Amino acid sequence: MHSTTIEVNNGVNVTALLGAREALAQAPEAARFTWRASCDWVNGTHSRTSIEGYHGLGEEQHHKTRFVFDTDHPEVFASEDHGPTPVECVLVGLAGCLTAGIAAVAQNREIQLRSVKALVEGSMDIQGILGMDSDVRNGFDEVKVTFEIDADATQEEIEALVAQSQKRSAVYDILTNPTNVAVHVK
Amino acid sequence: MHSTTIEVNNGVNVTALLGAREALAQAPEAARFTWRASCDWVNGTHSRTSIEGYHGLGEEQHHKTRFVFDTDHPEVFASEDHGPTPVECVLVGLAGCLTAGIAAVAQNREIQLRSVKALVEGSMDIQGILGMDSDVRNGFDEVKVTFEIDADATQEEIEALVAQSQKRSAVYDILTNPTNVAVHVK
Repeated sequence: MHSTTIEVNNGVNVTALLGAREALAQAPEAARFTWRASCDWVNGTHSRTSIEGYHGLGEEQHHKTRFVFDTDHPEVFASEDHGPTPVECVLVGLAGCLTAGIAAVAQNREIQLRSVKALVEGSMDIQGILGMDSDVRNGFDEVKVTFEIDADATQEEIEALVAQSQKRSAVYDILTNPTNVAVHVK
Repeated sequence: MHSTTIEVNNGVNVTALLGAREALAQAPEAARFTWRASCDWVNGTHSRTSIEGYHGLGEEQHHKTRFVFDTDHPEVFASEDHGPTPVECVLVGLAGCLTAGIAAVAQNREIQLRSVKALVEGSMDIQGILGMDSDVRNGFDEVKVTFEIDADATQEEIEALVAQSQKRSAVYDILTNPTNVAVHVK
């Protein structure tokens, strides 16, 4: 044990995560998770989506509380702007995923974080979603993430933290690699 | 003009959208949008992300209000569950995007919607994010979306609505196709 283990505290329970890894190595089927979102159309481009239950560790699980999100299109799209656009929700996911990873990796490397800020920018040409030009994709043509991190570490160590977080990030993988999405009507 | 135009009202201003399409055809540079999210690490895996400004139609734009989202990991990951997981935010985006598209396409096709519900499920093997098995990806291995739609239309017409929404959905494209994500440290 390093002498610094008890001094560095980023609020991530690395011991529990390493324990979980050992437990899952014995029971890999428990590592199968299914995350869920239930959406109800409200009106126009406005929808309301709830997050509550999910499946993991071999059984049904629940968040401590139900999280509810409104999404909508903005006024410049002739909508009422009752919530962020769906693409902005994806950026929220990317920001939260990379930042959580940085905290976990920093804890494991015994680096004390003081602050982490991320600006996530996704650019797109809306000629895609408007069906004006079939050569223009509907989604982002590029996403940029800029971190500002204050930590007890060199710039090189901070860059290595961010790189390791990227390597293990679920949402970074979801954006950069294709996923099969099956859409059905009941 | 069809006699039904004034009767069908899904709350989507299709006339304005078609007008925007014509206006953008004259000024395609106005179709370049940049969406933004600003994230602050709170503690552990808990972050808070704000959505407010974005760039589009050639200038800086603002949502009517600032939208703030907490993301976190759940208690089964030894975290405090202050918000949905980042991957669930992506599912919220997918649900909201496809549902908004269905309302817009239905309006354009003069189909009155009564209700639209979507269940979005993303499955993953957390051996990926835990770094246990390099053959397991970090993100979703599959996403399933199930719609239940009550509308003045046949099952075939409803399925065609959903298919057209998929075809023009930004978030569906983001999930199913790769996007370049550049991560920098300031």
